[in-house]
Amino acid sequence: MMELKTLDDLYQIALDDIKGKKGLITISIDSIPKVSKSNDIIGNCVQEWIPQWLEDKGIDLVSNSHTQAFPDFTAQINGKSYDMEVKCWNYNNAPAFDLANFEGFYREIYKDPRKLNAKYLIFGYRPTTHGFEIVDIFMKNIWEMTSPTQKYPIGLQNKQGRPYALRPYPFHNNPNRCFKSRWDFVVAICQTRILFPPTEEIVEPADWMEQVRTKFKELTDEDL
Amino acid sequence: MMELKTLDDLYQIALDDIKGKKGLITISIDSIPKVSKSNDIIGNCVQEWIPQWLEDKGIDLVSNSHTQAFPDFTAQINGKSYDMEVKCWNYNNAPAFDLANFEGFYREIYKDPRKLNAKYLIFGYRPTTHGFEIVDIFMKNIWEMTSPTQKYPIGLQNKQGRPYALRPYPFHNNPNRCFKSRWDFVVAICQTRILFPPTEEIVEPADWMEQVRTKFKELTDEDL
Repeated sequence: MMELKTLDDLYQIALDDIKGKKGLITISIDSIPKVSKSNDIIGNCVQEWIPQWLEDKGIDLVSNSHTQAFPDFTAQINGKSYDMEVKCWNYNNAPAFDLANFEGFYREIYKDPRKLNAKYLIFGYRPTTHGFEIVDIFMKNIWEMTSPTQKYPIGLQNKQGRPYALRPYPFHNNPNRCFKSRWDFVVAICQTRILFPPTEEIVEPADWMEQVRTKFKELTDEDL
Repeated sequence: MMELKTLDDLYQIALDDIKGKKGLITISIDSIPKVSKSNDIIGNCVQEWIPQWLEDKGIDLVSNSHTQAFPDFTAQINGKSYDMEVKCWNYNNAPAFDLANFEGFYREIYKDPRKLNAKYLIFGYRPTTHGFEIVDIFMKNIWEMTSPTQKYPIGLQNKQGRPYALRPYPFHNNPNRCFKSRWDFVVAICQTRILFPPTEEIVEPADWMEQVRTKFKELTDEDL
């Protein structure tokens, strides 16, 4: 087995080991097995399988205890910590998973803008007659998966007039339509916040932008 | 094997064969199996397993093609047709499944009030360390599973100001708090419709009530 030193190694192993492979979900009650193949079940099950498989590969995945916090996991590889999200979707359709809860993301990025670099490991599956198949696998930054929409500066699900979830653009077909850079993406988050002014104790967009910019530079020695 | 002649026989077989039994959900990708045990997955999988198990028992289950139509299935037993719904929920919590979509139910009952007699076969499961267990099984009429609430004449989920789904009361703990009769339940449906006046081509509550009453009598030779 190849020694895992970076997230890119991990992505390579996922491609080598899992891309094109078949999957099967079985439910047994009193030892009577049946195959499950509804879409919801496949998606949820793949999303549970991946973290367990990552642990088999020696990657220590620590799950974020707060459900709205961003990101879902911290992965330990070769002594380094990586922020990670694991997603999957039915490749026959446009990607429909949430990239992040908008308010949670806004809050977490303000506290620690390094989380902007969280990596998404994404699995596209396709249901088959007897189960499903992993059609393709992606490793992406968040800004490489979303874009401005006709209504908003960014892919956004609105629930009862409040911004709810950051949503993906069909990045697998049209990667060039997504944001070109982390900076463009952060500006779009800020513009979205301006459209939906913060309530109560949420930080104002201008202050948010300024702190994210300076703190990111301070912590990473890179420009946002 | 006991010969199945009625729905009651079916319920008895379910109790004998499945109550108290252990279940397990496995997802394999490239033949690497993992156990799934999140709540969503168990619920969805049990809901897929049951109809397949019923077919093993020789019951021909015809699924209703329209997703909002009521009920989900028609079961053929010994030459007779029964309207049926199959539900399940995590027995550690209050039952949280939808009894029916309100609008679909209102429409279907108007067309054929015999569907009021649809039987619910309900499975209460409990997650365990290694899977789950079927703790109890119920066979109920719809009026035996809901009751007036503080806000509405019936258990009702409201979505954006419109009635959305009929919801259960914790019937497993307090069966006596549920509606006493089909009639009381139908009256509560009618009162709910009055609270949320029908739009466009939906029939008025008074006309609905009258037709349901007379047509039920006509078709079943029983009082509503």
